[in-house]
Amino acid sequence: MAEYHILLAREYGFCFGVKRAIKLAEETIRSGIKIASLGPIIHNPLEVERLKNMGLRVIGGIEELGPDESLLIRSHGIPLDLLNEIKRKNINIIDATCPLVARAQHMVEFLFSEGYKIIIIGEDGHPEVKGLVSYGGGNISVVSSPEAIPDITPNDKLGIVGQTTYPVDKFVEIVKEITGRGWEIRVFNTLCDASRKRQGAVKELADQTDVIIVIGGKNSANTRRLVDIAESEGVDVYHIETWNELRSNWFLNKEKIGVTAGASTPEWVIENVLEKIKELCSQ
Amino acid sequence: MAEYHILLAREYGFCFGVKRAIKLAEETIRSGIKIASLGPIIHNPLEVERLKNMGLRVIGGIEELGPDESLLIRSHGIPLDLLNEIKRKNINIIDATCPLVARAQHMVEFLFSEGYKIIIIGEDGHPEVKGLVSYGGGNISVVSSPEAIPDITPNDKLGIVGQTTYPVDKFVEIVKEITGRGWEIRVFNTLCDASRKRQGAVKELADQTDVIIVIGGKNSANTRRLVDIAESEGVDVYHIETWNELRSNWFLNKEKIGVTAGASTPEWVIENVLEKIKELCSQ
Repeated sequence: MAEYHILLAREYGFCFGVKRAIKLAEETIRSGIKIASLGPIIHNPLEVERLKNMGLRVIGGIEELGPDESLLIRSHGIPLDLLNEIKRKNINIIDATCPLVARAQHMVEFLFSEGYKIIIIGEDGHPEVKGLVSYGGGNISVVSSPEAIPDITPNDKLGIVGQTTYPVDKFVEIVKEITGRGWEIRVFNTLCDASRKRQGAVKELADQTDVIIVIGGKNSANTRRLVDIAESEGVDVYHIETWNELRSNWFLNKEKIGVTAGASTPEWVIENVLEKIKELCSQ
Repeated sequence: MAEYHILLAREYGFCFGVKRAIKLAEETIRSGIKIASLGPIIHNPLEVERLKNMGLRVIGGIEELGPDESLLIRSHGIPLDLLNEIKRKNINIIDATCPLVARAQHMVEFLFSEGYKIIIIGEDGHPEVKGLVSYGGGNISVVSSPEAIPDITPNDKLGIVGQTTYPVDKFVEIVKEITGRGWEIRVFNTLCDASRKRQGAVKELADQTDVIIVIGGKNSANTRRLVDIAESEGVDVYHIETWNELRSNWFLNKEKIGVTAGASTPEWVIENVLEKIKELCSQ
């Protein structure tokens, strides 16, 4: 049997904010505190199921909270009025709001206090955006296309904040449309670069390997993007959702095997894939 | 002889800042105060000659100033260290710095005091830009193309100011390249919209007239732009430098005659053209 090496991409899988939220949930459960999460903690049914089995309840509103339960705020954050209601009801909070989201909320609050007309570049109705909007005191627009930009008069001072997961190219395009209008635009770059870093890392990985396994949902946009990038680098690429799909002939005469994963792929799924690759290569 | 109307474009000729500087020079001379201008007051030899004949001297440096002369600062403004030197020497100043340029200088000073890394979008070496740079305390870049953008690190807060006469499309293009880099960008829209307004006005004029006379240098870029816009609106267009070029057959069977002028065309040249048109139409 030939020698082989498995290399993991420098950045892959869950973003920092989601990892942190899951860790907070697990630690809280282990410490014996009962918790319920307001909405699913991540858009991955397998991972939500795993946490439910550990003891995490998922609720749709705070009225469903049991008298002895603490409330987990997921990484997206929640609107200010809801937060105030929770505090008024003296509910114990486990706050897993992503620090990057919390910072974006803070910047909206700051721009509001400084009298800026606020524009949030993001998807209207997205849970994170609902939270951001709530810090803007009402005079605020959510813009996801140049057509949605509100009227701007020559003396306007505009404060701009982005939804953390918004694609940078779309963000730049909308800022461009606003530039040169109004008197001042003040743009805070609240975008998270997790996706961009994952994409850079798979490119780097392709330079060092002969074959790349990309783990993630077949209809996950960010996972497909990783596949496309790896393919354009000229290595063999296989896109799988679970370890059952791995085939031993993919690794024949391959010395360096790369592994990466899309944003909704839990760590334990990735670990199972790594184990299975080792098994197939050792046969 | 048929009835005719002459319509002037809503905006044409000298910009507000240049008109104001010339008026200040004329008023000062009329009041009996001797003045010398630091550099030519406008890039139009005919107009400079006219002002020289009134009594305005043009000098290349403050050492050329006579003991009984006041110093005229032209619309571009001057660098802060030169201004301080003039003040130290107790020279009387007639400050014709364009208020829009003065505001841009003030914004650079403000951004410097707030700790921003400053980028001036404009032509390096232009007199106005030299003035703007002098208010930035040294840590400042002049950028006229995306390639000239300085290194930006993720925590940078960038303050951006434009040379007042810089084209808005180029300004927007450079801001776009900076957006999404650094933590904050704060952009002050210090661009003067005189050119844009002149262009909008000639379009409007073309809708109301049968023939348009555009006055301005044959190699003046902003005058050519006015000609192109008028032509694209489907009216007859004639581009002249002086009234001698006007021909009576241009106005045959034309009821509505439009007149506009490029940025370096003095008011008195325009008035002579208007007189000559009336003369030709009344024959």
